[in-house]
Amino acid sequence: TQQLLTGPATRPKPFRVANFNRSIKKGIMADGLRDLLNKLPDALHVSSVCSLVLEEDGTMVDTEEFFQTLDDNTVFVVLDKGQEWTPSDNGEYRL
Amino acid sequence: TQQLLTGPATRPKPFRVANFNRSIKKGIMADGLRDLLNKLPDALHVSSVCSLVLEEDGTMVDTEEFFQTLDDNTVFVVLDKGQEWTPSDNGEYRL
Repeated sequence: TQQLLTGPATRPKPFRVANFNRSIKKGIMADGLRDLLNKLPDALHVSSVCSLVLEEDGTMVDTEEFFQTLDDNTVFVVLDKGQEWTPSDNGEYRL
Repeated sequence: TQQLLTGPATRPKPFRVANFNRSIKKGIMADGLRDLLNKLPDALHVSSVCSLVLEEDGTMVDTEEFFQTLDDNTVFVVLDKGQEWTPSDNGEYRL
């Protein structure tokens, strides 16, 4: 149980990260926030990443501690300076 | 347990892959991303595969690591250059 709770911090987990306009969304393995941030420029063809927010509600994730609580396949949106999260326009949230 | 977690990477798993306009969808066994990509041209009668995205949300899958985390019978859509994923038109996302 101890191992399940603390977990090996280095086990990579799957995440999904979209660029600002959602034209690219990629599955990326990362063992932490820093690892994910390092992989983003190449994966999404962005030159700089100002912040990482949750796709579902725009929550900014900027600590390893909070990042480690996220489920597998959590969806992020990458924001550059001056960009703000807006709800996805794919109809999922519109009934 | 160790074996369950890491798994034998070469055990083939079933996947479902559709062409761009969803006119063909096939069940294909593959032990990895490379194996699946190799089988796609013949299976779907496409000449080239630019990228493989998840049918559910358009997430691009381009690493073996991420591919190995996917469930059996995950549904993919094959995209050629210039094609972009759009939500399935089968009503699942439209109420």
